[in-house]
Amino acid sequence: MDEFALIDIIVEAMGDRAQGEWVRLGPGDDAAVITPTSGFDQVASIDVLVPNVHFPAQAPAFLIGYRALMVSLSDIAAMGATPRYCIVALTLTEADVGDGSWLAQLSGGMAQAARDSGTYICGGNMTRGPLNIAVSAHGEVARGCEIRRSGGRPGDKIYVSGPLGGAGACLRQDMLLPVKVDAMNELQKAYYKPQARFDWQQGLSSASCAIDISDGLLQDLGHLTKASGCGARLIEEKIPLTTGASLADALNASDDYQLLFASEQPHPDAFHIGELCTEKGIWLNGNSIDTKGYKHFNA
Amino acid sequence: MDEFALIDIIVEAMGDRAQGEWVRLGPGDDAAVITPTSGFDQVASIDVLVPNVHFPAQAPAFLIGYRALMVSLSDIAAMGATPRYCIVALTLTEADVGDGSWLAQLSGGMAQAARDSGTYICGGNMTRGPLNIAVSAHGEVARGCEIRRSGGRPGDKIYVSGPLGGAGACLRQDMLLPVKVDAMNELQKAYYKPQARFDWQQGLSSASCAIDISDGLLQDLGHLTKASGCGARLIEEKIPLTTGASLADALNASDDYQLLFASEQPHPDAFHIGELCTEKGIWLNGNSIDTKGYKHFNA
Repeated sequence: MDEFALIDIIVEAMGDRAQGEWVRLGPGDDAAVITPTSGFDQVASIDVLVPNVHFPAQAPAFLIGYRALMVSLSDIAAMGATPRYCIVALTLTEADVGDGSWLAQLSGGMAQAARDSGTYICGGNMTRGPLNIAVSAHGEVARGCEIRRSGGRPGDKIYVSGPLGGAGACLRQDMLLPVKVDAMNELQKAYYKPQARFDWQQGLSSASCAIDISDGLLQDLGHLTKASGCGARLIEEKIPLTTGASLADALNASDDYQLLFASEQPHPDAFHIGELCTEKGIWLNGNSIDTKGYKHFNA
Repeated sequence: MDEFALIDIIVEAMGDRAQGEWVRLGPGDDAAVITPTSGFDQVASIDVLVPNVHFPAQAPAFLIGYRALMVSLSDIAAMGATPRYCIVALTLTEADVGDGSWLAQLSGGMAQAARDSGTYICGGNMTRGPLNIAVSAHGEVARGCEIRRSGGRPGDKIYVSGPLGGAGACLRQDMLLPVKVDAMNELQKAYYKPQARFDWQQGLSSASCAIDISDGLLQDLGHLTKASGCGARLIEEKIPLTTGASLADALNASDDYQLLFASEQPHPDAFHIGELCTEKGIWLNGNSIDTKGYKHFNA
């Protein structure tokens, strides 16, 4: 199939997600055109997924597409921003292209994730080479109101937006494959259908700092405390676990894309798991943990 | 080297190009934050370069980086927009990473292209896998003033912004390698250091349609006429050639990233090469040419 037939497949799969509302011009020109909201800043991030690192090569294409879009959008959620649009660069082998059905499924998964998050996929690029999916994700936040990693202060309470460890447990228990799009267990859903937590945008507005958990609680808390110039004390019993996940899954292997944030304010809808503190480092029930030593925790 | 040491190399190479002016927050958080200009729309595009398709794997990393940024920005120039920022996703093999010196050169080339075009590289992503460079390029244009491919009308004069065929001639004459960053001939410069034509932004404001030439004059003129619902008549003698390039290089192999546009207005600084016409198709000195048959022209 030639490039233009493949692009037609993608654009058809995008359906209502290619253009509309703030996207004035979608795919088909040199660039897309998006109208920003007056008084808001643009928030931009890019993520790449490659097979057998970020997803099993044999996974259903629909789930690969869904996950690719959501993990990229999660960075936008972590800034406290509203998602607006994504542009996607696909590098595909001849085998990936085939008769176009794999690509249609991949695009369908992306379109579903765009629908679930209220965003558009308004442009992209396709080239031949080893499979590589790059998603550039874009959102908006009221000027000056983005939540950075660096704003945390000792005494702020630490929260997570939901249970952790599901994606890690799925991996550890070798449940990534086989998987069926319409019959996933909870751990498979945690891995393949993470939800960028845009529903927390309002809640984040009083946060002092935030990050999304893509590399396990300890490592991402390490990024947050380093940027904020402080340490953190966690209470093991308070860390919420996905059913079937272990504490080690949550601490080390979690890429559930929950939000991790700190705040002076109470957040009754979130899980309070500890406090930021003056002393550098991370403590779990009073014991120091090396965030780079998280591999010791592998179950 | 670990990921964080590599990111430090990139950010250091970016220097003043990582943050400033409209980029309120550069690399190091979940996403970058950019302040748009009031009354302007955002223009967004993404391009991917893979080795031995878009550049020789053995080319100097500085030139690979320079070219990668400029070809992506060229799509922004083709909309009549001002460049604002890029975000870059690098997928690198262990060999590419090495001691970090290749990456420093690559980043240095990107930073130079950002400097030459007045833009910032305010974020990115790095992962391991077969070499792949994705650049998401972003600009701004006064609301409703973007120049699309679709606005051309029969009778509009067709222009190009500069001589064509240099990059194609470099390829045809097997001059891509060896190449030295500081001692390139004109054809090598055309290939490795294309210039996104932001200097034409003012001139484009009276254009009816525009595209950048990345696949040869005929193919890109085909995109322009198809979108505009018309045909085109070219005058062979008027097509400007880079010294050392043949007509075939210009028609078929050109990826010099000059702008191709049409206008009712005179553009004395551009090269007038023909007219849009009612009959579909492309004519060269009155003879019909199949834009998909451009390979017949290979020298």
